[in-house]
Amino acid sequence: MNAAMPDTFAAWRSARQAEIEQALSRFVPDQAPAGLGEAMRYAVLDGGKRLRPLLVLATCESVGGLREAAMRAACAAELIHAYSLVHDDMPCMDDDVLRRGKPTVHVKFGEAQALLAGDALQALAFELLVPGDGSLPDAMSARLCRLLALAAGADGMAGGQAVDLASVGVALDQPALEAMHRRKTGALLQASVTLGAATGAPASATLAALTDYGAHLGLAFQVVDDILDVTADSATLGKTAGKDAAADKPTFVSLMGLTGAQAYADDVLARAHDALRRSGLAETATLHALADWVGQRRS
Amino acid sequence: MNAAMPDTFAAWRSARQAEIEQALSRFVPDQAPAGLGEAMRYAVLDGGKRLRPLLVLATCESVGGLREAAMRAACAAELIHAYSLVHDDMPCMDDDVLRRGKPTVHVKFGEAQALLAGDALQALAFELLVPGDGSLPDAMSARLCRLLALAAGADGMAGGQAVDLASVGVALDQPALEAMHRRKTGALLQASVTLGAATGAPASATLAALTDYGAHLGLAFQVVDDILDVTADSATLGKTAGKDAAADKPTFVSLMGLTGAQAYADDVLARAHDALRRSGLAETATLHALADWVGQRRS
Repeated sequence: MNAAMPDTFAAWRSARQAEIEQALSRFVPDQAPAGLGEAMRYAVLDGGKRLRPLLVLATCESVGGLREAAMRAACAAELIHAYSLVHDDMPCMDDDVLRRGKPTVHVKFGEAQALLAGDALQALAFELLVPGDGSLPDAMSARLCRLLALAAGADGMAGGQAVDLASVGVALDQPALEAMHRRKTGALLQASVTLGAATGAPASATLAALTDYGAHLGLAFQVVDDILDVTADSATLGKTAGKDAAADKPTFVSLMGLTGAQAYADDVLARAHDALRRSGLAETATLHALADWVGQRRS
Repeated sequence: MNAAMPDTFAAWRSARQAEIEQALSRFVPDQAPAGLGEAMRYAVLDGGKRLRPLLVLATCESVGGLREAAMRAACAAELIHAYSLVHDDMPCMDDDVLRRGKPTVHVKFGEAQALLAGDALQALAFELLVPGDGSLPDAMSARLCRLLALAAGADGMAGGQAVDLASVGVALDQPALEAMHRRKTGALLQASVTLGAATGAPASATLAALTDYGAHLGLAFQVVDDILDVTADSATLGKTAGKDAAADKPTFVSLMGLTGAQAYADDVLARAHDALRRSGLAETATLHALADWVGQRRS
């Protein structure tokens, strides 16, 4: 958005990513019994772009929210994301052996441990939002729990995954495909923005604009994901490339072609930027840059 | 505890069980997409003794807590229990085909849907605790979320399950066996009592006594479970009998023999009753009766 932005953003991102890694390492217990802690840490640490935590932190910074709450919400969103990857990779779901360039959790620790690690990560996400030491206002903890539960559950991520499983070999039209992704990946990405907003007290018009931004960014993320599934190789992605086509899953590329999907990603990202401009917030450069980053990602 | 109790308790239990069934049916969505809602409702409705919800409601009544909060917490505890059964029954865990006399969720809906239904039920449990309509005080919602997250996670139920999986064929001594069960089944049963207490404002000594009661009741439940695994048949249990011995899992019966385990169950239940007598609460008849019910259950 701004010629000076890329370097500034890269510095911001690196600094925040380092803080997020430290916080995740502190929050995910290594003393959990019978190897469970080891599996949980393997699932969460040392990998990932941390897009969801970055969205939480950037939104918190834009609205002048409570930093301690934002770091906890950032980690909680990442734990939900991490648990979903662990469960999605299991043989009964996508049956994938490679994630972030490493063996998936069930390959490394066995299916039962992977199942439990995912379950425990989901519980831990909610635990983080209610520290129990009074460091977060109760009303904020309660709101963060509600936002996260809605994003993770049957109307959000888990529901989207169910639709995805039922869609193999089915020719979805664009509204149906978008409805699936709004739940499957969009809900948690959008919630990352609204979690960040909930660490402050934005005006309702600002919150509405941020919510729109999150929705567009979430959709753009998925369109780009579908493009990368076709154009990138497994080594770059750190996961198995081409698996959507192999699984006969409907994608934005199968629906509108590669060129059409790329144009659509640009269009959706433009709407994300528009929403930010409507927010009335003074400090939106980082959120604009995060939208650009989603559009430009190569893995 | 009291000659007049059984009939009074039976009436209380029937009335509350009916209310719990209605609340669960209202809270667990049938409109969740792609069959997910159907699998979630199948996992939760029409079966089960509802011991955890009954503990929440009885404790709420003893401490004069907020009824609306207690019914939500009761259902949340049951959803965590139900999700754990769905995941535990999956082929990669206990591989069981029968539960409450019906085919298990993965047998009926497939493994992927069972995995997702469990995941969505856990998220829904937390959603229930933060209604979003102001009907529960934020501080109460936050505390309920924290108690449930701790009971469900790596230090609670999920951690206990990991220890259980690692214990097949291992000769645990009594402290190790109790430590496993304190997490695996005890944490959520104890949390059912502390969730109920958190709907009110008991004095700290009362809360400590109730917490002890919950711990003893949780342990007694597991000792009786181990006894029933040996003495009951599958039709009575509604699940596969004898599976612990078949799986070479350590149990209280394998550790102390059938007679020893029965004496131990009585001893632990006596401690539960003692704790209640220390609570200073005026109305504990229902909680006493629930402890007796745990001791007398035949399925």
